Amino acid sequence: MDYVKENYTMLFDFYELTMGNGYFLNGFDKKITYFDMFFRKNPDGAGYSIACGLEQVIDYILNLKFTDDDIEYLRSKRCFDERFLEYLKNFRFTGDIWAIPEGTPVFPNEPIVTVRAPAIQAQFIETFLLLSINHQSLIATKANRICRAAGGRAISEFGSRRAQGPSGAILGARAAYIGGCTGTACAISDERYGVPATGTMAHSWVQMFDSEYEAFDTYCRFYPNSATLLVDTYNVLQSGVPNAIKAFKAHGITKCGIRIDSGDLAYLSIKARKMLDDAGLTECKIIASNSLDEYIITDLFAQGAKIDAFGVGERLITSKSNPVFGGVYKLCAVEDDEGKVIPKIKISENTEKIINPHFKKVYRLIENESGKAVADYITVYDEMIDDTKPLTIFDPVYTWKSKTLENFRAVELQKPIFLNGKLVYDMPSTDAIRNYCREQLSQHWDEIKRFENPHEYYVDLSPKLWDIKQMMLHGFSNPEL
Amino acid sequence: MDYVKENYTMLFDFYELTMGNGYFLNGFDKKITYFDMFFRKNPDGAGYSIACGLEQVIDYILNLKFTDDDIEYLRSKRCFDERFLEYLKNFRFTGDIWAIPEGTPVFPNEPIVTVRAPAIQAQFIETFLLLSINHQSLIATKANRICRAAGGRAISEFGSRRAQGPSGAILGARAAYIGGCTGTACAISDERYGVPATGTMAHSWVQMFDSEYEAFDTYCRFYPNSATLLVDTYNVLQSGVPNAIKAFKAHGITKCGIRIDSGDLAYLSIKARKMLDDAGLTECKIIASNSLDEYIITDLFAQGAKIDAFGVGERLITSKSNPVFGGVYKLCAVEDDEGKVIPKIKISENTEKIINPHFKKVYRLIENESGKAVADYITVYDEMIDDTKPLTIFDPVYTWKSKTLENFRAVELQKPIFLNGKLVYDMPSTDAIRNYCREQLSQHWDEIKRFENPHEYYVDLSPKLWDIKQMMLHGFSNPEL
Repeated sequence: MDYVKENYTMLFDFYELTMGNGYFLNGFDKKITYFDMFFRKNPDGAGYSIACGLEQVIDYILNLKFTDDDIEYLRSKRCFDERFLEYLKNFRFTGDIWAIPEGTPVFPNEPIVTVRAPAIQAQFIETFLLLSINHQSLIATKANRICRAAGGRAISEFGSRRAQGPSGAILGARAAYIGGCTGTACAISDERYGVPATGTMAHSWVQMFDSEYEAFDTYCRFYPNSATLLVDTYNVLQSGVPNAIKAFKAHGITKCGIRIDSGDLAYLSIKARKMLDDAGLTECKIIASNSLDEYIITDLFAQGAKIDAFGVGERLITSKSNPVFGGVYKLCAVEDDEGKVIPKIKISENTEKIINPHFKKVYRLIENESGKAVADYITVYDEMIDDTKPLTIFDPVYTWKSKTLENFRAVELQKPIFLNGKLVYDMPSTDAIRNYCREQLSQHWDEIKRFENPHEYYVDLSPKLWDIKQMMLHGFSNPEL
Repeated sequence: MDYVKENYTMLFDFYELTMGNGYFLNGFDKKITYFDMFFRKNPDGAGYSIACGLEQVIDYILNLKFTDDDIEYLRSKRCFDERFLEYLKNFRFTGDIWAIPEGTPVFPNEPIVTVRAPAIQAQFIETFLLLSINHQSLIATKANRICRAAGGRAISEFGSRRAQGPSGAILGARAAYIGGCTGTACAISDERYGVPATGTMAHSWVQMFDSEYEAFDTYCRFYPNSATLLVDTYNVLQSGVPNAIKAFKAHGITKCGIRIDSGDLAYLSIKARKMLDDAGLTECKIIASNSLDEYIITDLFAQGAKIDAFGVGERLITSKSNPVFGGVYKLCAVEDDEGKVIPKIKISENTEKIINPHFKKVYRLIENESGKAVADYITVYDEMIDDTKPLTIFDPVYTWKSKTLENFRAVELQKPIFLNGKLVYDMPSTDAIRNYCREQLSQHWDEIKRFENPHEYYVDLSPKLWDIKQMMLHGFSNPEL
């Protein structure tokens, strides 16, 4: 569906424009810079994450424009030069962006997005780019974990009311679908992004009638083809399930469902299953909801729960157990006046905050025999991988740990999205991204998908890149090669 | 600032319209219903929460409108009656809303918002109302805790890049300011809501120059009045602080700051303070950032950290330690054909999910002598409190726990917001809400504001309301009085 996309130009961190003004005044406005967006740790101690949120970055870049009101607001802050404000009036993005497509499994320390643009522009888009990809990657990753726990049973995203703001709900539902959910309760995410929305009744429907049976009977009358009755308004086993069975029978409905939203879901589902089966309603599905996540769902099945599908709300839409995806956006190179790419590095008191310098490429190395990915491999931008020859890869910290690959192929992960400010990427549909995510995940061994102590997937550096990084770390006070 | 407010009509849970269609077909569309929005537990085990998010509910209600595209989308779902779709074309909110103003400390199980409206309308606004108040109350509450830990030092909200979606950033900054933060990095929250935005530099500024000193020198040249230099790009004590001191001296700047964004903040700030003081820069502030929250800030001061202000990002903007504010929206009464208010209740297998039935009022009881609040007191809508006479209140579960108040006043907490669909509330400015929040909090004893084991503030029921609830619980299968 076409709808007016919000202009998020003003959604920036203020320092991006104090720096921008400084770059402008210092003659750096045409200086070409390279920034990488990457993350350092998978959420929830997981072995992988799912990249998501690129479509909204594209929308943002296409809609970049300071209005007259925006310029007036900036002027009122009394810290920007008039020439800079004049420059902002025609501000647009003229650079290049490469990104790993949405739905791809991604790993720590590899560039998900790389931006090449004049300093002011590249710096300016930092906040929105990070927030979009951090948010949706977080939710897609969490959704994928919950779907794994459910072992193929349907998971519907139910969390709008507990989302962190309207776009937390709308875009969270999109990301959850990409990560594997079968749908959402959130209608606007269906209308805008094609995430199938469904929904039946709340407790208030049941309360609105003089009796629970009357509520169920009325619902079955209006919705004979999608009757899922909420059975826990009063008492699941004493009134909810018996009234549901009576209503289904009265209307001759066999394809139906009951939803249990409180109490001991393992115990209640086992008892309810037996009552439904005894009544001949073997096709009636049992849907469970109430503060679920991958851990509780795993437990429920360990306890023999008879649940066919789940509604998952707050713990999915906020990724409650780990509500931050820590993506960062770091300068990794600049171009000198001759267009030569000069790598840049940031050291840190926290060694895990040290970055991989330079303009880079990232490859996924796939064994031809198994079809499985064995490592990602980061090179300097001008390196080529010859995958007809053996390739020795090594751990970037414990360099004595190495492995030689033969009979493999190297697939470049980043695709061009913008070149010279022009969109060159055909954005796939939400359904296509969801299918692509499933296919891509099938390229990875189950060992990286475990909840506890997953195998750590290799993300290695080429010898050339590794050498440059070491040289810079040892001589950081003069970071020129 | 005036800006086009997004039409969030379609941000509803699908069941709200399957129910709506059912109410419509069943002749319930004019049935008057009462819903309460309340929550059951303070986040983070706290003793209080801060109500926030009402302004966006008001915007939402004022902007409610199904477009032709929306109707077409709904038709495509093939579950709505054409007469219902026709009805939706002119859908607007015609009911009443009462709410506790933003910035008020609130407590579990008391109605924050009460809606009286025809069933379809009252049901329809559930999702947006909950998500707005849940989200912003969560962040305002978290911000208030962090500000308490900082003991009056400035806290700036820095978290946009880790927010859960664009509105998580924009509205999160608004809520954080209401909760006590002094400002934000997020420019659009300043432009729209008047949350003061500031910002100086990122690591990339430092990396962009040939040396750290050149970066600092250039910044001091452009921003002599707001020079806060980021000193941890290479090494805080060996290069960052010495270069900052040199640059401040070179430009004759004394009112300035340094920011430390990594490493051991206690150790580094103590050492940096000494270096600055030794250089005569006693007015130079030390600002710390890097995954902070109320617990870490408390610890830093226990370790003697010399920090004057904080930038707090991901753990504030997502309320990381507890990212869900569990507000719910429950039917509590309906009107019969004669306009008589009939209380409704929802029982549950989980006893903490049982609701307080009926159309109610909530009062804050304030001791005249101390000026402090001692309890909140919920009554049936038609009860009056005579605060010239002693009042005995009792715990709604442990009813033998009682207390008699004398010399107190009773302040009604909810204010009318909409009456007959018309906005009757003058929305205060963000600054006014922030000041009101601080004043209101001063009415509460510090005992409820502790991080660990806070005093549990009393939220009691009037004897009349308590009796009705007990009667309904014992006879729930026929919930009429």
